[in-house]
Amino acid sequence: MQTLTVSTRARVAMIDITSAVAEAIRQEKIADGLAVVFVPHTTAGVTINENADPTVVRDILTEMNKMVPFEDGYHHSEGNSAAHIKSSVFGPSLTLIVSGGRPVLGTWQAVYFCEFDGPRHRKVHVAVR
Amino acid sequence: MQTLTVSTRARVAMIDITSAVAEAIRQEKIADGLAVVFVPHTTAGVTINENADPTVVRDILTEMNKMVPFEDGYHHSEGNSAAHIKSSVFGPSLTLIVSGGRPVLGTWQAVYFCEFDGPRHRKVHVAVR
Amino acid sequence: MQTLTVSTRARVAMIDITSAVAEAIRQEKIADGLAVVFVPHTTAGVTINENADPTVVRDILTEMNKMVPFEDGYHHSEGNSAAHIKSSVFGPSLTLIVSGGRPVLGTWQAVYFCEFDGPRHRKVHVAVR
Repeated sequence: MQTLTVSTRARVAMIDITSAVAEAIRQEKIADGLAVVFVPHTTAGVTINENADPTVVRDILTEMNKMVPFEDGYHHSEGNSAAHIKSSVFGPSLTLIVSGGRPVLGTWQAVYFCEFDGPRHRKVHVAVR
Repeated sequence: MQTLTVSTRARVAMIDITSAVAEAIRQEKIADGLAVVFVPHTTAGVTINENADPTVVRDILTEMNKMVPFEDGYHHSEGNSAAHIKSSVFGPSLTLIVSGGRPVLGTWQAVYFCEFDGPRHRKVHVAVR
Repeated sequence: MQTLTVSTRARVAMIDITSAVAEAIRQEKIADGLAVVFVPHTTAGVTINENADPTVVRDILTEMNKMVPFEDGYHHSEGNSAAHIKSSVFGPSLTLIVSGGRPVLGTWQAVYFCEFDGPRHRKVHVAVR
C-alpha cells in the first residue's frame, strides 16, 4: 500500500492527483488488478471528473456548496457538518481497473482528491490487488 | 477486461445493463472475485437500483434534475456542468462481489448506466480480478 | 463471503457496523486484499463517516432529508422514492483496503449501514479477495 500526502489551501477544493495515483499504482508492481484509492478522512472524498477546463471543478464545488450549505442549523459543534455530508455524497474510495500496470481512465478523466474542510494536510492510500 | 457499448437516446436516462454486465463477468472466467464496472466518461455514471417498477427510475432522474439544475449560473461553457456534477454524485465505478462466476445482487437490484448528457454513444468497462 | 444482518428501528438511520465488518473480514482469512461491503437492497446504502460525535450522523440524515424530500410529487406508488434516490447518492457498495487481515480506516472513520426506508431487517455482504 502506498500513501500520498496532499496539502490543501482552501476550505473546499478539488486537487488533481491522477499522476501521483498512477505512480503509486506503478510502484505496486501488479500488471493486472484493481486499485483502490482510499481517503482516510471523514471531511474529504475522492472522485473522477474532467481535467481539461478548470471551470468544471469550479462549478462542481459551487453547486455542492448550494446542495449542502455550510450553515444549515446543524447540531455538530465543530462547524463542519457540511464537509461530513459532502464526504458521504462523493464517497471516500474509488476502485479503478489496472491494466498493464496503469489505471484505465477515459480521455477526459482525472482522479481528484476532494477537500471539504480545509485547508489541511491530508493522506490518500492507494493499494493494488 | 470487457467493454460494453451503450447508446442513449435522451439527455438523461438510466439504462439497465445488468444482463450485459453479468455476461461480461461470465466471459472473464473467474469464479470468485471482484468485478469493477467502470464508466470512462465524465458526464455519466453507474448505479444500482430497482428494476421492477419503471417509475422508480423516473423519480430518480426527475429528483436529480431538481437537486442539480441544468442551468444554475455555471461557468463551464459547454453547458453540461449539471452532468459533470451528477457524475460525481453517483460515481463512475461500482464494485460487485462475484461468486460462482456471477455478480451477487439483491432480488430487486439492477445495474444501471446513468446518462447525464445524452444522447451519446458510451462505453462501460467490466473487469474481474 | 460473509453476510451480516442489521435490524433498523427508524425510517432513516445510520448504524455503525465497523466491528461486524472487521470481524467478517477476519473470518475471510486473507491478510492483504480488498474487501467489498455490499448492500443487496435498493432503499439502503453504505458509507463511511465520523464515529465520535453522534450529532454528525444526525446532521447527515437531516440534511439528506432536505436534499431528497420524503414527498416531492413522486410517481412510484410505494411511497419510498426518496429512499431509492438516497440509495443511489450514497451507493450500495464500499471497497476497503485490507492489510494484515484488517480494514485500513482513518482514526475517525466508521462504516455505516444507511437505512432509508425502515424499520426493516437488512443484510450486508462482505467479501475479501
